[in-house]
Amino acid sequence: MDGESRQPDRPAHPGIFPTGKRGESLHRPGQRSVDFPVSVVLPAGGTGERTGLQTPKQFCPVFGRPLISYTVQAFERVSWIKSIVVAVAKENMDLMKEIIQRFQHRKVRVVQGGSTRHRSICNGVLALGEQEEQEAAEGEPKVVIIHDAVRPFVEEDFLFKIAMAAKEQGAAGAIRPLVSTVIATTSEGFLDHSLERARYRASEMPQGFTYDVIRQAYQRCTESDFDFGTECLHLALQYCGTNAKLIEGPPTLWKVTYKRDLAAAESIIKESLCSSGCVITGGSAQAVTLADALQKSAGALDMELDVIPDLLGDHSRYLLKECNFIQVSVNPSGLLELESMLADVEATNRAPLHPLVIIWDAERWERSVMRVTEITSALIRERSPALVGQLLQA
Amino acid sequence: MDGESRQPDRPAHPGIFPTGKRGESLHRPGQRSVDFPVSVVLPAGGTGERTGLQTPKQFCPVFGRPLISYTVQAFERVSWIKSIVVAVAKENMDLMKEIIQRFQHRKVRVVQGGSTRHRSICNGVLALGEQEEQEAAEGEPKVVIIHDAVRPFVEEDFLFKIAMAAKEQGAAGAIRPLVSTVIATTSEGFLDHSLERARYRASEMPQGFTYDVIRQAYQRCTESDFDFGTECLHLALQYCGTNAKLIEGPPTLWKVTYKRDLAAAESIIKESLCSSGCVITGGSAQAVTLADALQKSAGALDMELDVIPDLLGDHSRYLLKECNFIQVSVNPSGLLELESMLADVEATNRAPLHPLVIIWDAERWERSVMRVTEITSALIRERSPALVGQLLQA
Repeated sequence: MDGESRQPDRPAHPGIFPTGKRGESLHRPGQRSVDFPVSVVLPAGGTGERTGLQTPKQFCPVFGRPLISYTVQAFERVSWIKSIVVAVAKENMDLMKEIIQRFQHRKVRVVQGGSTRHRSICNGVLALGEQEEQEAAEGEPKVVIIHDAVRPFVEEDFLFKIAMAAKEQGAAGAIRPLVSTVIATTSEGFLDHSLERARYRASEMPQGFTYDVIRQAYQRCTESDFDFGTECLHLALQYCGTNAKLIEGPPTLWKVTYKRDLAAAESIIKESLCSSGCVITGGSAQAVTLADALQKSAGALDMELDVIPDLLGDHSRYLLKECNFIQVSVNPSGLLELESMLADVEATNRAPLHPLVIIWDAERWERSVMRVTEITSALIRERSPALVGQLLQA
Repeated sequence: MDGESRQPDRPAHPGIFPTGKRGESLHRPGQRSVDFPVSVVLPAGGTGERTGLQTPKQFCPVFGRPLISYTVQAFERVSWIKSIVVAVAKENMDLMKEIIQRFQHRKVRVVQGGSTRHRSICNGVLALGEQEEQEAAEGEPKVVIIHDAVRPFVEEDFLFKIAMAAKEQGAAGAIRPLVSTVIATTSEGFLDHSLERARYRASEMPQGFTYDVIRQAYQRCTESDFDFGTECLHLALQYCGTNAKLIEGPPTLWKVTYKRDLAAAESIIKESLCSSGCVITGGSAQAVTLADALQKSAGALDMELDVIPDLLGDHSRYLLKECNFIQVSVNPSGLLELESMLADVEATNRAPLHPLVIIWDAERWERSVMRVTEITSALIRERSPALVGQLLQA
């Protein structure tokens, strides 16, 4: 039906999750870096009309964490991104500050958005300039990346391409093939003509600009641009004569627009969240045996488990990751161990965990390893508060 | 960010589910009908490259039923649609026939698709002609609606608009506002210009044509059209001089394109599937009391429950609907009742049900009504095979 190549729509290395294994450096070997300052502006002033939800979509929770927090995290994990400015509507300033605190975002500053998309972005860009004046030693950011708060799956590799092209050309933007044929309509609502698909592309986010280009564009553009325009690339072309370099982005750049897109985002986040876990044994030899069996069998369900004795010392770093904790106990004090683990997890302010107990028949445990694994995996996948407190039988 | 109006992306009356309550007529009062023959062609020859899945997306299961079966059902439920032709790749002919049998589709015929979208649609249109020759008394369909197998949420109201406009104008098609800015690119990959968004629309499905227009369009078009074109409205304009009437469709017309869209479709189908259920009491007074309490409390979770004594006689019609059955038993023979109910359900070849048992404390049942309801709702929502056979405690 169209010439699009075979590309997955899920990030290979979702920026929102740690890419390093077992607490190693999050910087992947071979990952390129940039040697100039890069900052990010996230316009997030929207009111989410199209989702049909009360909450603006960037604040809708996905597994207890607002969507915008995933997006911010995707940028924070990129070592060469220096700062992030989020522009939100006045009534959401406090909410955004709470989110920053709760999810321990470090590189983010909140500014008040404007009444339109361009006004919000402009506020963000100006705030970057002020920031730089204060920290004069570092100078202005060389490149500003503009992205949408509701595109949480942006990856480092693509950000690198945009930053480099922006520095070189003054402006760069993500494009995607058109999904539908675009047609011109007559004023009476009839088909005028259809566009030759190959010549056109959908303009997506992220886009990158040198700081000078984007600042000038906003200094020179008209009130009408501010009120009715949406396309930064267009301003750069019209007011700075800068033709943006267009770079084909991956399908993962899609934007959460409708309520159904939240379900899609949830499924992608869930896939990552459920692909790993951490088994806590308390250190007893028997529990370690069970945990090792569980670890082996989880591979068949595409789940990778680490086995650790506790969450103390060096292992406490697991508490800072998005992680599923599984407590294995072989004695009646198991419930106490579970409660202690829960207290540790809750202390980190993370998305709520839903404790359940699976009974694993000690006599015939080898026969039921797969069953325990399946139930564990299902519980992790479904995260259902309604099942809290149930005893399940493997 | 754009001028789109506040419209939900979920169907108010999803065509895929019975709209009539409690077995009443499926034809809603006030629903308009058409007085000319209408048939449907569903091109479904695609190989699903963009989902990143092995199975072509139209055949991907959603709660045990292939996506295309939901789409077919949406058309079958429309009383004035006479027949549906599905064009599938040669290697999927048997699979499609199996689907028709398993899900008891009645109005559907399968034809072999072609190597491109236009060739598949053309085969479908020609097959409609042949069919009509055989059933000469009925004559050719006046209007042919063309739709995508991967847009399962099409609603009767919109089909009506397309059919009426097609009859009047010769051709009609669904349009949607553009989600992204469309830009023209230079051959070197730079921005040439961006399109004025207000003048353009995305062309979507369904589209409708009088039989004569669509047949002539395919008789007159070139091999190049067949191989590289995708837009039926364009053929009607170029080869029959027919300017299509363009009608703004609801967001529910979206197309399942990527793997993430399957998750979105699942969430919409789930919302409908989980919104109703049927409590079977066996007729004992005590069970009826419990069932009535459950029914009342389910309202708080947006779930509507019918209470019936059994699946016999008139109540057997519930077996023909997509339904969640909940067996309430107050004596030790409960498990037998459950087994008998399962046998009835399985005999209808429907999507598999996952039996679980919730223990409801008879002494203090009134206190735990909400808890039972929550657990029941969660089990229905999650449909997890891993929990089959568990005893849960309310």
